[in-house]
Amino acid sequence: MNVVNLIQKKRDGYQLEKEEIDFLVSGYTKNKIPDYQFSAFLMAAYLKGMNDKETSYLTDAMLHSGKVLNLSSIPGIKIDKHSTGGVGDKTSLIIAPIVASLGIKVPMISGRGLGHTGGTLDKLEAIPGFRTDLNLSEYKSVLRKCGAVLIGQTKEIAPADKIIYSLRDVTATVESIPLITGSIMSKKLAEGIDGLVLDVKTGSGAFMRKTKDAETLAKSLISTAKSFDKKVISFITDMNQPLGNYIGNWFEVYESILVLKGEVKNDLYELCLNLAGAMIYLGGKSSSIKDGKKLASEQISNGKAFSKFTEIVRLQGGKVDYIHHPEKYPRSKFIKKLIVDKNGYLEKIDNYQIGMASLELGAGRKKLGDKIDPKAGIIFKIKIGDKVKKGDLIAELHSDSKSKNELAAGMMSGAITYSNKKPLKPKLIKKIIS
Amino acid sequence: MNVVNLIQKKRDGYQLEKEEIDFLVSGYTKNKIPDYQFSAFLMAAYLKGMNDKETSYLTDAMLHSGKVLNLSSIPGIKIDKHSTGGVGDKTSLIIAPIVASLGIKVPMISGRGLGHTGGTLDKLEAIPGFRTDLNLSEYKSVLRKCGAVLIGQTKEIAPADKIIYSLRDVTATVESIPLITGSIMSKKLAEGIDGLVLDVKTGSGAFMRKTKDAETLAKSLISTAKSFDKKVISFITDMNQPLGNYIGNWFEVYESILVLKGEVKNDLYELCLNLAGAMIYLGGKSSSIKDGKKLASEQISNGKAFSKFTEIVRLQGGKVDYIHHPEKYPRSKFIKKLIVDKNGYLEKIDNYQIGMASLELGAGRKKLGDKIDPKAGIIFKIKIGDKVKKGDLIAELHSDSKSKNELAAGMMSGAITYSNKKPLKPKLIKKIIS
Repeated sequence: MNVVNLIQKKRDGYQLEKEEIDFLVSGYTKNKIPDYQFSAFLMAAYLKGMNDKETSYLTDAMLHSGKVLNLSSIPGIKIDKHSTGGVGDKTSLIIAPIVASLGIKVPMISGRGLGHTGGTLDKLEAIPGFRTDLNLSEYKSVLRKCGAVLIGQTKEIAPADKIIYSLRDVTATVESIPLITGSIMSKKLAEGIDGLVLDVKTGSGAFMRKTKDAETLAKSLISTAKSFDKKVISFITDMNQPLGNYIGNWFEVYESILVLKGEVKNDLYELCLNLAGAMIYLGGKSSSIKDGKKLASEQISNGKAFSKFTEIVRLQGGKVDYIHHPEKYPRSKFIKKLIVDKNGYLEKIDNYQIGMASLELGAGRKKLGDKIDPKAGIIFKIKIGDKVKKGDLIAELHSDSKSKNELAAGMMSGAITYSNKKPLKPKLIKKIIS
Repeated sequence: MNVVNLIQKKRDGYQLEKEEIDFLVSGYTKNKIPDYQFSAFLMAAYLKGMNDKETSYLTDAMLHSGKVLNLSSIPGIKIDKHSTGGVGDKTSLIIAPIVASLGIKVPMISGRGLGHTGGTLDKLEAIPGFRTDLNLSEYKSVLRKCGAVLIGQTKEIAPADKIIYSLRDVTATVESIPLITGSIMSKKLAEGIDGLVLDVKTGSGAFMRKTKDAETLAKSLISTAKSFDKKVISFITDMNQPLGNYIGNWFEVYESILVLKGEVKNDLYELCLNLAGAMIYLGGKSSSIKDGKKLASEQISNGKAFSKFTEIVRLQGGKVDYIHHPEKYPRSKFIKKLIVDKNGYLEKIDNYQIGMASLELGAGRKKLGDKIDPKAGIIFKIKIGDKVKKGDLIAELHSDSKSKNELAAGMMSGAITYSNKKPLKPKLIKKIIS
């Protein structure tokens, strides 16, 4: 096979065959195809697209660039959830214990914060002692013992993804449905799962701003999952405002505790019931998503979900004391209160800017290697459609720097729009596709 | 400026500004932008196109990557011709002396054979002693003395072109009108010309197989030339069969001598009169192309064109004896005669295959660095539309290897189609655009 001919074939809009995509991905991963040829291929794929077959071939090639875990020695159906990321999205911390408490295995390999969105690993690491860097044998051991495990990507898992993503990042080829699908699915399939629930976010704080694009991505992910004989359900959910009321690493652990203890029943709680419900359904423990939701809410009321969460934390090395007594956790030095300056309704939020403000406070990384302040973050008090009056508290900004608080407060003010007319509240769950 | 943003801008179909294209081209040429980003940009430009303004900016950036010659110290208007290349195309050798013999300066910087097409430099170097590697001061000196000079590209001329072309060659981004335009025009504009005649070839032996594509390229070249205030005329001419009757390096010098001496008046002669006529018109020595053609034919009849040719050869170090006595030139060891095997008409030629056959004989390079046999080549006896009968001679193949002759003869047989019905002869000059 000739690389130039393959680039040309994609450039001219033809479908590449399995062997051809294998040749490109494995050649690039093994350093036999140079960057400049692979980036030309990526741009051709970006602009000419890849159909479902090609996307499945790409996923397969990336998946087999590394280890594919075999969890068959661990009894039970294995179900994971993947979210495309957003602001305040901490559902993994809540649904993993809910679902595991019902006997379904939840093997989760998660990522770090990327741009304006937080990462599950960074949140978990806000718990003192919590280890996300388990090796694959520790990973299996924790999963076997308590039914859930949450770790970061290891070098053995889909190494092609990291190499290809680094190139996409510097060649303007990130926002491509087939390339995103290959990246997500190659990592998820490597976990050794039987089924997957997808949460594809849409709105001003999501990578897919338009619902139409989110649906296209969801369909591509579903088609690929099915081509690997995996059970799959995708939700399209709203990301036009922060999910829940807390943004920031420890803040999100804290809100997860509140939800798991049944102390808060907000939009975050509602979404978690849905995602967990679908996982329970795919795991064969309920006959519908609806019944799964009911089971999920019971696991919260009866305390089993929270108890499972403490078990996971303990097994992964985290200090459980902070989970039982979150009030002991260190606090930021400064709190800046953001106040409503006129009467009316909260109409619109540029949720991307809210994410960027939390990053400014120290809750995320501006560049690779930046240190995160786990205490830093935002408590966001109001939701779109809420009636507000002058002097009301919109949000609290927490950090160890007054100037960071001021800067972030400015960003947030610019990101929030009020109106005199009561606006429609955005629908949290826009669609369920399977 | 940020490279990723610029790639993205082109990827999304927006027009790049002059500073942006300068930044990309100069950054890449100076090794500040890596291959993999520039190749992603090239693929985006290939698939999304570049408008006339961008093409002119690209040309300008490539032109100014090197030296732009200033020929103002040499009196007279400077006019060059550029052909997109074909099989048997030796017009430069004929029209340079014709036009120079009328007092117009012809500064020609030419290329080597590429793929199935021959290169002017290789043809000239078939003349023993002929030097195409003059430095820029020798170049000016020959031009001043005799009014014409034919050399190869020097390192000082548009170095960006060589660097970018090497990358295009391995990333499937060669066949792009704006990128081709930038490549051609940056080199031509660097010569210090006032005007340019273009010969854009179309047909089975041309890079642009379809007349429509050839016209698009011609229009792009014209628009770019005009944006630099150059006089320009473009011909669209036929390349569905070899031009003239000789293919191969010395063979083409020989046929040029025949035409310059007025001994042959075939399609090659006709095309040369047209191209020279247009150059004479652009050079202000005639009031129309038609009058220019008349002058050109006079310079052949009165011997001045041939005499100018010998002068150029002498000034560039070539042994003039071979020009006066071409019969002294060494001959190939073996001649293979290709014979017509049925009665009818020559209907169609896959002219690309004829070019490849001559390359097989040793008249061109299969890969960079291959040695050329200047004696080797093909004498092609018949033209499309000619009546033929079984046993007629189609062509003679000359080389020092019987097996090469056999192989090339096989390729040629497969490339020629006969029919019982008299086909239309292809029109030599399809269009003149300015």
